Parts: sequence; C-alpha cells; structure tokens
Amino acid sequence: MAEEIRFVEGGTITTPQGFKAGATFAGMKTYAEDKLDLGLLCSERPCAAAGLFTANRVRSPSVVYTQEQLAKGRLRAVVANSGIANTMVGEQGMTDARGTAALAAKQLGLGADEVAVCSTGVIGVELPMALIRESMPRIELTHEGGAAFARAILTTDTRPKEVAVTFELGRRRATLGGCVKGAGMIHPNLATMLCFLTTDAAVEKGFLQQALKAAADSSFNMLSIDGDTSTNDTLLLYANGAAGNDPIRAGTPEATTFKEALDTVCVHLAKEMARDGEGASRLLHIRVEGAKSDEEARKAARTIVSSSLVKAAVHGSDPNWGRVMAALGRSGAEIDEKKLALYVNDVCIVWEGLAIPFHKDSVVATMRRPEVSFRLDLNLGGGSADAWGCSLSEEYITINSAYTT
Amino acid sequence: MAEEIRFVEGGTITTPQGFKAGATFAGMKTYAEDKLDLGLLCSERPCAAAGLFTANRVRSPSVVYTQEQLAKGRLRAVVANSGIANTMVGEQGMTDARGTAALAAKQLGLGADEVAVCSTGVIGVELPMALIRESMPRIELTHEGGAAFARAILTTDTRPKEVAVTFELGRRRATLGGCVKGAGMIHPNLATMLCFLTTDAAVEKGFLQQALKAAADSSFNMLSIDGDTSTNDTLLLYANGAAGNDPIRAGTPEATTFKEALDTVCVHLAKEMARDGEGASRLLHIRVEGAKSDEEARKAARTIVSSSLVKAAVHGSDPNWGRVMAALGRSGAEIDEKKLALYVNDVCIVWEGLAIPFHKDSVVATMRRPEVSFRLDLNLGGGSADAWGCSLSEEYITINSAYTT
Repeated sequence: MAEEIRFVEGGTITTPQGFKAGATFAGMKTYAEDKLDLGLLCSERPCAAAGLFTANRVRSPSVVYTQEQLAKGRLRAVVANSGIANTMVGEQGMTDARGTAALAAKQLGLGADEVAVCSTGVIGVELPMALIRESMPRIELTHEGGAAFARAILTTDTRPKEVAVTFELGRRRATLGGCVKGAGMIHPNLATMLCFLTTDAAVEKGFLQQALKAAADSSFNMLSIDGDTSTNDTLLLYANGAAGNDPIRAGTPEATTFKEALDTVCVHLAKEMARDGEGASRLLHIRVEGAKSDEEARKAARTIVSSSLVKAAVHGSDPNWGRVMAALGRSGAEIDEKKLALYVNDVCIVWEGLAIPFHKDSVVATMRRPEVSFRLDLNLGGGSADAWGCSLSEEYITINSAYTT
Repeated sequence: MAEEIRFVEGGTITTPQGFKAGATFAGMKTYAEDKLDLGLLCSERPCAAAGLFTANRVRSPSVVYTQEQLAKGRLRAVVANSGIANTMVGEQGMTDARGTAALAAKQLGLGADEVAVCSTGVIGVELPMALIRESMPRIELTHEGGAAFARAILTTDTRPKEVAVTFELGRRRATLGGCVKGAGMIHPNLATMLCFLTTDAAVEKGFLQQALKAAADSSFNMLSIDGDTSTNDTLLLYANGAAGNDPIRAGTPEATTFKEALDTVCVHLAKEMARDGEGASRLLHIRVEGAKSDEEARKAARTIVSSSLVKAAVHGSDPNWGRVMAALGRSGAEIDEKKLALYVNDVCIVWEGLAIPFHKDSVVATMRRPEVSFRLDLNLGGGSADAWGCSLSEEYITINSAYTT
C-alpha cells in the first residue's frame, strides 16, 4: 500500500464529506440481537455512481429496480432493509421495491430515480409495506449515521463491517468509506452481500465503473464462505466530488491512487466478511503463485478456498495438505506435480511435489492462529492470485439447519 | 425397471459366475473398525474390461498404472488397498503400483498387465511394500469372497455397499454385481470412489465402455457428497462371458437389457454412497423436470444437490425452498420464475413461482424421513435429470476436521 493511503480510525460510509445516513427498526428482522433493520444513506450532492449485481438468474426485484435506476445515471441515495429479501414474491416484489424507493425519496426530498433499494433476508416473503411506511420517517440522517446504517443491513453477521481510508489527490485530500454485510451464501461472483462504498472524490463515471469491477474481481469475487451465490447481491459506489478535485479520469496518476484506495477498502471488507463467515473460527487465506497466468492462479485459489474438506481441516488445525493438492488438481489450472511447493503460514511442508519433514506440533500450533495462510507455488510462470474464505465448523451447520423454521 | 431384472439377495461382485475374491489386513488402515485393507478380485476367465478414472490433474500412480493396463486390453483382476492413497509420493508411487500389481499377479498366476491397482486413503504417504508383500499370500480367493473384498476397500464408510442383479439374455441368465466405497470427497465427475462391477455376460468391448460411461453419467456423476473430487477415483467393469451368451453388441435387444441392468446397479450403488456420506443423516434426491434439455436439467440438479445451504436445511428438516431456488438460479439453467413449481416429498410448496400455503408441520414431518426428495418443474421443455446427495451435518465437520492428526 502506498504511503499516502491511510486508514481512518472508526471510519465508515459517512466519513467522506457530504454523506449522511441513519437507521431504525421497522420489525422485519427477528433473528438478530441488533434490531436495526431499515437504513437510509444519502449524498448531499449529486453523485457519479457505479454498481455490480448478482449473477444469479433468480434475482430480487430490489436488484432489478436498482439496476434500472443506476442506468438512468441519477443515483445518490440508498434505502436498505434486512430480514426479508423481497425475492420470489411475484409482481408484488417490483411494486414494493418501487414503493420503498418512493417512500425514501419523499423522506429525503429526492426523485425516486435517485434512490437504490437493497434487501437481504428470507426468500419468498413480501416486504411489510405498512411497517416500512410507518417507520421510515423515524430515521434521522446525520453525518455520524454510517455506523447505524452498517448495523441495519446485517443478518446472521455477528458484527458490522466498516472501513474508511484517506488519500491525496494533488493538493486535495479525499476519503473513501464502505460497509458490508454478508455471512452466508457467500461465493465468488458476488455473494449474499450488500456493500456500499462512498467517496468525496470526484470521479468520471466510466472510470468509476471500471475501477469498481477491477476492485471487486480481486476482493469480493475471490471470497467464498459456503459456495452459494445469493439472489440479492448488490455493490454500489457513490462519488460525490465534495473533496473539490478535478474529476479523476482513467490513465492519470490520480486514477492509480484512487484504484489503490478502492482495492484497499474492498480487500479489507472482503477479509472482514470471511472472518465473520457463519460459524467461522478462522480466516483462511490462499495465495497461488507461479501459475501460467493470473487467470489460472485465480481458478486455483478460488477452488481451494471453496473446498469443504480444506475448510474443515483448517477448523481442526489439521495441516492436511493432500486436500489442498486434491482441490488444486480439480481446479483446471495447469500443474506439474514435481514442481509444486506448499507453505502453511510460511512453513514449507511440500517441496518439488513431495512432503518434507516438518515439526507437526509447531505447524498445528500456527494453524490455531485466527488467520491461516496456504501459499502454493506452481513454479510454472508469473501468474498469482489471492483468495479468502473461512473454516467450516459445526456451528455453520447449526446456524443453517434452523434458519426459517 | 423391466420385469426381467431382479435383485439378488446378498448379491455382490462374486455373485456372477467365474469371479473369485478375498481380503486380508496388511496394516495400512488405522481409522476404521473393520480392519480388512487389502483385497484381490479375479475372473477365472479372460475378460472384456471397461474403466473410468478421476478427472483430477493430481492423480495417484495407481490410477495411471491401471489406465495403462486397461488400454492393453488384458485386465481381469484387481488388487485394491485402503488407508493409503499412493498419491503425491514422487517416483516411488509408480514403482509401488507396479510392485503391488506384480505381487498380485504372482499370487494369482497371471501376467502383471492383467491386474489393476486401486488405492484409497491418505495422500502423501508411501505404500508399505513390506507389509503388502508379507500379507498378500494370506488372501484366500473364493466364490464367496466378494463381501470381504467390499469391506477391504472402505475408509470412512460406515458399511459395505454391494449389490447384484440377474437378467435374461435370450435363453441364458446373466448376473451383474458391484461394490463401491466412498464416503467423502464425493462430487460429480467421479468422486473419491472406487467401484468394481463384474458380470458373467459376454459383452463386446467397445459397447461395454460406452454403456459404462452412460451409466456413470446418470448415477455416480450425478452424486455429490461434499463437492470435492478425489485423486484416486476408479470405476472398473469386467465382463467374463461365463453365462455363455453371444457377445452383446450395441443396438440389439440384449444391449438394451444389459444397459438397463447396468444403470440399475450404478444408481443403486450411487444412492447407497449418498446414504452413507460422511455424517449424512438423510439421502437427498433432486429431480428436475421441464427443463429446456436434459443437459440443462443435469446442471440444475447437480448444482442444487451440491449446495451446502440446501444440504444443511435438509439436515434440519427445514423446507427452506428459497435456498433451492437460489441454487437453481446460479446453476446456469434457463428459467422463467413465473413458471416454477417445487414439490417436497410430493407436496407442492411453490406454484407459478410463488409460495403456496402448506401445512408446515406436515412437510417438516415428511422431511424427517430417511429420504428427502425435491422435485422442481421448470415448465419450459422436456428435459429431466436426477441427482443424489446427502444432508450436511455437524458430524461431517467433526469427521473432517480431525482426519490425519
């Protein structure tokens, strides 16, 4: 990370200038301690906006509605609810997404096409519009409201996940903040996650979308909690220009700095999601080096981090490297068994394809740390990639075998 | 199933005429109650043989060796061991595979190219050749030895999985038997499974391979325990002609009967594997109908049966149909949300894409049965497919977080 990018203590989505947020409890979320379940986020100025959405063919009307508004180019606010996904409820789903946006727009004094709608929770249940209508006016938007908004989007998450960084753009200082939810149904290609990013930098819109896609590809899309992709994934980035810089365009030094800040925030949030995966006891980091290409490295890293057997071994602090190799072998990445090297938390345990003697107790001991890292060197080329996931514990099953009933 | 195909009570791989088998304990398996770990299977006559092998790029030299022998066209015997996979042990792996085949060939009075070698167990450990050399002569081959062989190939399986059927070929009666192991690392495209099939029918070799591929595609390749594909999967089918029929050729009525018998045996063994999946409490059956094509139906069924969230819901007897739809949506199969219907154990709970009221307690009660079935009708065309898997339980994690250590 370049020196000029610095984390802000206690940073969140309202840390950048010109953003307000707030949240309330409307009565949609029953299964979490933290009862906030309806949040508003708004820029005080018009924004450039960028977004990425679930690749699932079953998708929430909240997602469809937000994609349509993003295309119109006027987005600057978000209304988000947790507890109910507004998915597979027929025509009513789009009616309710529109209705929720209209209520939020009225409250914020904006046009309905300036408001994104994001929902997360149980599938097949309609949004309780009466509750939303009654509760929305209770939301007070403040410059400190980011933390409440970050709590309002949580479902089975155990804690809010927020961050902000600052960086210099010529003689201006800009800030980029973000928050995310997502504890289950998390898998490469945008998982059950809602992620909101805000910046007071001015950014040219085409570059904003391109930078967001690149940042997601090396962070959220390299993350796997359980292999399931949600129907409601949404990642939104608003840039309101309150920092006063000239709009950032592709290919400039400012673009490089901005991309680095964006990557930093996205990787930080992705790792926080992995750490807070359902029932996760440990963060799992897979690094693949020496692949024929970055794409091959990505395939290998994603396959290994998604393996139930690797994840269960990490839960048990078991340096069971055979499972890592079996996952590598089915990933489709080109390998030469005789050239493989594997490191567990930097201790080499496989060299030239063969187990090398290691002190098992000390490797097991390092695997008891909160973060376990497998680094695999294919020794075939210059491709590399990182992926993140979590251990698979008995608690994941307990959480997921009693969710709706 | 045609009337002429009948299950044989207590049937196994030595039920067909002219096959002998036996097993012993060589000292390779430490983690199972059942201590047999080295088995021999042999046809008393030359055979037509067919085989399918793991698609994993990391593969055991036992697999490589057996593929080479199969290509030579003289296979009629198998030596199989459990406890050690003979995988990722360098040059020694091929030396030991050859050595094991040679020991078995000597014992059986055959050429080394007539013996397949199959290994299953922990990766990265060399075969203990001294133990194998010493133990092999203790194996006594008998016409009743199939049951001992079926036990000798088990690892974390809780029970042997065997079957035999008989069927008429003109005026001759033929028999087809099989046994299988595989409790974890099981996923479409041949999982950690060893499967041995024997028949006394005479079958033309090209047709034998073609029939085996087709049978595997609609049975073992539609099975998922945990999404991991092994390095050692092997499926072998020996046809020795002891029934005295004219060799079966493609396109004849006998070919149809034989294929049906083979499908019956493979589906039976695949379901037995799912039922005995690591920590499995229930067999999960997914049937997808009304897809645009069989291929689309296969994609959908495989994705749903592989979903950790669906499997955890089945473990908890939770009719959480949203997870089935989310898995369907990411499978890549074409869908029209408004046309979807879903049945849980034949109770319709989604119709035209909407939840319909159902008596939850009674659905939950049917989900407590040993077999849970989800039938999904896409209402778009004539494609259909079946897939099998198992519930995901806390016990799966317990088994797999303490395997090598």
